[in-house]
Amino acid sequence: MAPTTRARLVETTRTLLWERGYAATSPGAILTESGVGQGSMYHHFAGKEDLAAEALDESAAQLVAAADRILNTGAPATDRLITYLTRQRDVMRGCPVGRMTGDPDVLDSDRLHRIVRETFDHVRTTMSAVVRAGIDDGEFAPDTDPDALADTILAIVQGGYVLARAAGTDAPFGRAIDGAAALLAAARLETSR
Amino acid sequence: MAPTTRARLVETTRTLLWERGYAATSPGAILTESGVGQGSMYHHFAGKEDLAAEALDESAAQLVAAADRILNTGAPATDRLITYLTRQRDVMRGCPVGRMTGDPDVLDSDRLHRIVRETFDHVRTTMSAVVRAGIDDGEFAPDTDPDALADTILAIVQGGYVLARAAGTDAPFGRAIDGAAALLAAARLETSR
Repeated sequence: MAPTTRARLVETTRTLLWERGYAATSPGAILTESGVGQGSMYHHFAGKEDLAAEALDESAAQLVAAADRILNTGAPATDRLITYLTRQRDVMRGCPVGRMTGDPDVLDSDRLHRIVRETFDHVRTTMSAVVRAGIDDGEFAPDTDPDALADTILAIVQGGYVLARAAGTDAPFGRAIDGAAALLAAARLETSR
Repeated sequence: MAPTTRARLVETTRTLLWERGYAATSPGAILTESGVGQGSMYHHFAGKEDLAAEALDESAAQLVAAADRILNTGAPATDRLITYLTRQRDVMRGCPVGRMTGDPDVLDSDRLHRIVRETFDHVRTTMSAVVRAGIDDGEFAPDTDPDALADTILAIVQGGYVLARAAGTDAPFGRAIDGAAALLAAARLETSR
């Protein structure tokens, strides 16, 4: 029984954080949505931050696993990067980790901020390695900065979500990705094509 | 006297929205920070949404004016786009309009959401025209999609803010911009260099 209640609390919090953000997610809303009693919540978790940390850890783990699956293949580097860009789903909901950065309360919490920071650090490191492989294989110019290109690609995805929410439609996300894929293809060295 | 009180309310709200977001900005916080009395606030504004709309309008007007200044010059298109990317300031605070998209209450308000949407539409239109000029001048390939490249550049800036806040430092923003500038330079047609 206990694990189910615990899991239900984490999953409900994960969804609320994703959809409403941290500040707008009250312990009361978590209880109502999960159907769990207050005593049970405080039996499993010290409080909202503790529960949010576990929920965010779960979102981060899923995100990192998905990125690793896409980026760690034997395909040419440019293809892997373009696949990463085009494999984004659930555009209007955006990134469950990236959206947390809009919440000052998250950035003020060492524990929550560290999860966000380490998630991006992990994906950046994986993506930088892909770019370095692309340089070694002659796809990218030798003076390409792997960390810079990794952050450019991460930014396009995160910013694409911002544009989609601003527009109220996922069209600008699609255009941002198309434009990025075209730039990557244009930057690819002739010798590798 | 009245214009000063009004202006103080708008400026305080603008700052709070930028730093804390819409949900976390209470009428009480606006009163405390501005030193304006409650009666005076409701004399000038119907409520929080009304005041936020005026504050957001002001932020949007400043943002649009700055973008127009950078993008509507006689410089080559690639240079104008790179200037737009590198002229971003106040990285850790981010974009006062873009950050609103993380707030479901803003997206639920027709009036606030329209300001956000129209701001991005305006900058996208201006930037698309720059890309079209670049195509006409032989800087970009004739099959370049002006709206796609415009959204890619907008996304890099908005996403760069997300990465900076996630990292707790503006370094990833700088790297994302550097990577974008390198991609734009690499995509520039040889004939125009």
